[in-house]
Amino acid sequence: MQRLTYPSFRTVLEERAFVRVAGVNHALGGLLAEEAGCDAVWSSSLEVSACRGVPDASILTMSEYLEAAANIQKVLQIPVVADCDTGYGGTMNVAHMMHEYEAAGITAVCLEDKRFPKMNSFVGTGQHLLDTGEFTTKISVAKRAQTSPETFFIARTEALIVGQPVAEALERCRAYADSGADAVLIHSKAKTRDQIMAFLDGWDFRVPVVVVPTTYPDWQIDDMRAAGVSVVIYANQGLRATVAALRDTYAAILRHGDSTVVEGSIASVRDIFDLQRLAEWQKLEA
Amino acid sequence: MQRLTYPSFRTVLEERAFVRVAGVNHALGGLLAEEAGCDAVWSSSLEVSACRGVPDASILTMSEYLEAAANIQKVLQIPVVADCDTGYGGTMNVAHMMHEYEAAGITAVCLEDKRFPKMNSFVGTGQHLLDTGEFTTKISVAKRAQTSPETFFIARTEALIVGQPVAEALERCRAYADSGADAVLIHSKAKTRDQIMAFLDGWDFRVPVVVVPTTYPDWQIDDMRAAGVSVVIYANQGLRATVAALRDTYAAILRHGDSTVVEGSIASVRDIFDLQRLAEWQKLEA
Amino acid sequence: MQRLTYPSFRTVLEERAFVRVAGVNHALGGLLAEEAGCDAVWSSSLEVSACRGVPDASILTMSEYLEAAANIQKVLQIPVVADCDTGYGGTMNVAHMMHEYEAAGITAVCLEDKRFPKMNSFVGTGQHLLDTGEFTTKISVAKRAQTSPETFFIARTEALIVGQPVAEALERCRAYADSGADAVLIHSKAKTRDQIMAFLDGWDFRVPVVVVPTTYPDWQIDDMRAAGVSVVIYANQGLRATVAALRDTYAAILRHGDSTVVEGSIASVRDIFDLQRLAEWQKLEA
Amino acid sequence: MQRLTYPSFRTVLEERAFVRVAGVNHALGGLLAEEAGCDAVWSSSLEVSACRGVPDASILTMSEYLEAAANIQKVLQIPVVADCDTGYGGTMNVAHMMHEYEAAGITAVCLEDKRFPKMNSFVGTGQHLLDTGEFTTKISVAKRAQTSPETFFIARTEALIVGQPVAEALERCRAYADSGADAVLIHSKAKTRDQIMAFLDGWDFRVPVVVVPTTYPDWQIDDMRAAGVSVVIYANQGLRATVAALRDTYAAILRHGDSTVVEGSIASVRDIFDLQRLAEWQKLEA
Repeated sequence: MQRLTYPSFRTVLEERAFVRVAGVNHALGGLLAEEAGCDAVWSSSLEVSACRGVPDASILTMSEYLEAAANIQKVLQIPVVADCDTGYGGTMNVAHMMHEYEAAGITAVCLEDKRFPKMNSFVGTGQHLLDTGEFTTKISVAKRAQTSPETFFIARTEALIVGQPVAEALERCRAYADSGADAVLIHSKAKTRDQIMAFLDGWDFRVPVVVVPTTYPDWQIDDMRAAGVSVVIYANQGLRATVAALRDTYAAILRHGDSTVVEGSIASVRDIFDLQRLAEWQKLEA
Repeated sequence: MQRLTYPSFRTVLEERAFVRVAGVNHALGGLLAEEAGCDAVWSSSLEVSACRGVPDASILTMSEYLEAAANIQKVLQIPVVADCDTGYGGTMNVAHMMHEYEAAGITAVCLEDKRFPKMNSFVGTGQHLLDTGEFTTKISVAKRAQTSPETFFIARTEALIVGQPVAEALERCRAYADSGADAVLIHSKAKTRDQIMAFLDGWDFRVPVVVVPTTYPDWQIDDMRAAGVSVVIYANQGLRATVAALRDTYAAILRHGDSTVVEGSIASVRDIFDLQRLAEWQKLEA
Repeated sequence: MQRLTYPSFRTVLEERAFVRVAGVNHALGGLLAEEAGCDAVWSSSLEVSACRGVPDASILTMSEYLEAAANIQKVLQIPVVADCDTGYGGTMNVAHMMHEYEAAGITAVCLEDKRFPKMNSFVGTGQHLLDTGEFTTKISVAKRAQTSPETFFIARTEALIVGQPVAEALERCRAYADSGADAVLIHSKAKTRDQIMAFLDGWDFRVPVVVVPTTYPDWQIDDMRAAGVSVVIYANQGLRATVAALRDTYAAILRHGDSTVVEGSIASVRDIFDLQRLAEWQKLEA
Repeated sequence: MQRLTYPSFRTVLEERAFVRVAGVNHALGGLLAEEAGCDAVWSSSLEVSACRGVPDASILTMSEYLEAAANIQKVLQIPVVADCDTGYGGTMNVAHMMHEYEAAGITAVCLEDKRFPKMNSFVGTGQHLLDTGEFTTKISVAKRAQTSPETFFIARTEALIVGQPVAEALERCRAYADSGADAVLIHSKAKTRDQIMAFLDGWDFRVPVVVVPTTYPDWQIDDMRAAGVSVVIYANQGLRATVAALRDTYAAILRHGDSTVVEGSIASVRDIFDLQRLAEWQKLEA
C-alpha cells in the first residue's frame, strides 16, 4: 500500500470557495474529521497540550507539537494547518520552525502575535502582545525561511484577545499581510461575533480571513461566507466531545460494574479496525 | 508545583482487593480514568496505534509505545500498566524494553506469548504463538533485566485466541508463573466468559489473574472477584467512545453549519483548563 | 536563511561516475563528510547504535534510526543513504518504513536479507538469512509502498557474511534486482576483496553494485571503478576515529590535570561555530 | 543483564574531594569519559546543538536536550549533569523542566541567568542577563518543583560573560544560593583565570563552586582545588577533538583513495563492540 498523498492547504483554499477546518489532537481524530467532510484539520495547541495534561502555555516544546502535526498529516488526504503558537521563541526559533515543519510535510502554519511563552487565549490573565514590528519581523523571517512555494503562512492577531480595539487588529493585520502573510486570523473571545463583523467591515481583503468561532458558536457558515470569511476553524469541539465521552464511559463502567451499559453507544472494535485501514495492510501479507 | 508521585502497580494490587484498569491512549484519558475512580490505567497498543491511524500489528515502534505510556504516567497518581505486546522482538529487545520502561517510571508491563510482529487479538488471521520455552526465556530475561523490586511483570497468554484449549492456557500460565511472572493474563475472544471461567477453575492461583472482558462485557466485577480474578482491564471502551463522539461531533457541526448543536453535550473550555490543572500552574507566575 | 535543499541519491548516482559515501552518526559528522568532498553519507546502524551504547542488533527502534537519518539530512546538501537493517520486522514494517523514510525526506534506503532482529555483520554468531522469497517479498512491498520516483532502494545481501558461496550471493542479487531493487550491496567480512571481485566477475550489472570495504581497506577507488563498482561506503571509520579521539582527549586531560595538552590538536570553538553556520543564523537578528 | 544504576551527582560530590566532569554529546562519549576516569559528564548544549548542525542558541528544544541527556545517563555508572541553558522559557517552563528531567533520571541540572532564547557564551553578541530577581524566582520555582532530595541544582551566572564586574557575579551568586541553588557556576571567557580567582577570593562558600576553564585551559586541577573550586567541567574538548578527528579521517580517505591510511590510528571494530558491551548482551541469547 502506498503512502497517502495530500494537496497543500494553499491548493485546497484555491479550489474551494470556503474551507472548513476541525481541530484535532491525533491522527484518528484527523481521519474522523476527514470522513465527516472537513477540508483540512487544525493541529491544535490546546488539544495537544490538554492530551498531555498540561496547560496550553508554551509548556510542551516545538518538537512535541510538530510530532503531533506530522503524525496527523501522515494518514490524511486533507492538509493539516499547524497551530504554531508564537513560533516557539525569537526569530531564530521561527526560522527553525519553518525548516522543521516544511521538512515534515506540513503545508500551512499559523503564528500568533503574542509573546513567548504564551497563554491560551481564553485565559483571563497572562496575555501579552508583541509590538507590531517584532511580529512583522517574525513573518519576514518565516517567509524567507520557506523553501516551498506551497507553504501557507497564517498570521493570527490576538489584539482583540488582549482588549485592543478592532482598529488595532485591522492595522496589525494589514502590516502582517504586507510582510508576507498569506492569510490573517482574527481571534476574539467575545460572546458574539460583533467584533469579528466589525473587523470584516474594515478589512480590504488583501489576503483571506480565518475565524475561530469558539465563543460565538451560532455563526452559520453561510453567513460567514457572506461576510467575507474564507476559512473557519472549529478548534476544540472535538477535544471537548472526547472529554465528555470518556468521562461518561469510565464512570458508567465503574458504576454499573460491567461495560454492557456503554456497548450500545460506542464504536465497535470492527470500526476501529476500519479506521486503521486494517484490510489494506493485511493485503501486504497475502 | 511538584511533580506528581504515584504508587507502583504492585503496591496498588497489594492494598486493594481488586484492581480496575481502564485503557487509555493519552494523559488526558488517564486523568479522566483516574477521576472516575479507576485504580490504574492500561496504555493500550490498540488505542495508541489507532490514534496514529495504523493497525495494532507491531507497526509502531517500542519508542512510540513507551513515549505514550511515559507521558500518561507523568500526570497521574495511579500507575500505568504498559501493554508491551510481544516485547518488540527477541530476547535482547525484551531486556532493552525492561531497561527503558523502568527508566521511564513505568511500574507494570505486560508481555504476550505471540510472535513478533504480532496482530491484534481480535483479528481472525495472523495469530502465531511462540513455543512455551521461547516465552519463558523472555520472562526470565525480563526479570533478570529488572532493577527495581517494584516492577510488576504480567505474562499474557494468547493460547485461547489462537484456538488452543484451556488446558494449554493453564499449562502455559503455570510455566510463566514459574519463570517469574508476577501475574498471568488470560485472554479470550469468545462471546461468553465460559473459557475464562474454565481457566479459573483449573488455576491454582500461584500468581494473580488478569482478565480483559471485551467480548463478554456482561461479566460483573463482583462475579469476577468471586471467581478469583484480581485485575480487570476495560481495554478499549474509551477509544471506542472517543470514535463515536468525534464522529458525531464533526458530522453534526458540518451538517448544521455551526457548532451550537454540540455545545450542550460537550465539555466546556473551562473543564479543559481544569483537567490541565491550569490554576495550579498559574500560581507559579504569582 | 532558507532550509537547505539537496539532490536525491538517484540524481547524484546518475550525475557522477562513482559515488563515495561516508558513514556518520550525526549531522555534524555529515557536515564534515560533505566538507571533505563525500558525495553522500551513510546513516549507519553500527554508528548510531554505538553512540547510544547498545549493540547493533535491532535493539534501537526504527524511530530512533529514522530520527538520526532525518536529522542528518536536514543540514546537508548531499543525500543520506539510510541503513535500514532488515526493515524492522515483517512486510508491514517494511511498508511502514518506506512511508516514514519518504515522509522524512530520505531519498535512499538499504535493506539487508537477514532475519529480524539482526546482528551486526562482523559478529561471529547470530547471523541468519531470510529465504530469498521472503526477501524479494519485502522488496516488492517496499517498492509498492514508495510514492516518489526519486526514492532509491538498495538490496543488501549477507550471503557471504553467513558463509554462503558467491554463487548464492549472485543468485540472490539477481532476484533482488528483478524484484525492483535499484542497486545491490554485496557485503563480505573477508580479509581481502577476492570474494567481492568474484561477485563482480559474475554480475551482469542489471543494477549498480555497492561495496563496503571495512575488512579489505586497501581497495583503491580507481580499482573499484575498474571492477564495476558504482558506490563505495566507508561505513564506520568516522566512528572509530571518534572513539580514538575521545579516548585520547579525556585521558590526556585527566592525566595532565589541565586541557592545554590537547589544545593544539583539537578544533577551535570558532570552528564549531562555523560548522553550526552561526554567522548565517545571526543575520536573522540583524 | 540488568539496567545500570548510578549514584546521584549529589552523592558523588559528597564522597569525593573534587569532581571532574567532561562534556559529551552522546552515550558513547559518556562511556569513554567514564572509562577515562571522569566522575560525571556534562550533557553540553554546545555539543548537542553542534551535533545537530545548528547554533547553540535555544534553537533545539528541551525535548531534544532532554533526550540527549537521558540517553547518555542510561548507559553510565556516573551521573549526568544536564546543561539546561535558561530553563527553556519562563517559570512554567522551568517547573516543567524539573518534572521532566527528574522523570528521566537526571540527578543534576544547571540553569543560567540569561534571557531565553540564549546565545552561546563565547559569541560576542546577543548576551542578555535576566534581572537577579527574575532568576531567583526561577530557582525557587525549580526547587519547589523538585520531588527527589537527591536532585542537585546548579545556578550559573553569566555576569562576567556580559561584561559585569566580579562584584556583580558575587552578589548574584549569593542571591542564587540563598534562593536554594545547591552550587554556583561562575563562567568567564577571559583568556586567564584572574576573574575567577577574584570571584573565589570574594566567595563565602555557602555553596560549592563550579568552573568551566575553556578559555584558561592551563589551570591545573590541584590549583583549582587549592583555590576552593569543587567541580571542573571540561565542557567541549571532546566535541572539538571529534571535529578534528572526523575532518582528518574523511579527508585522508578521499585523498588516498582507500582507508588504509587511517587504519593505524582509529579504534577497531572490536573496540566498538566492547563499548557496546556486546558480550554481555550476547549472554541473553545463550
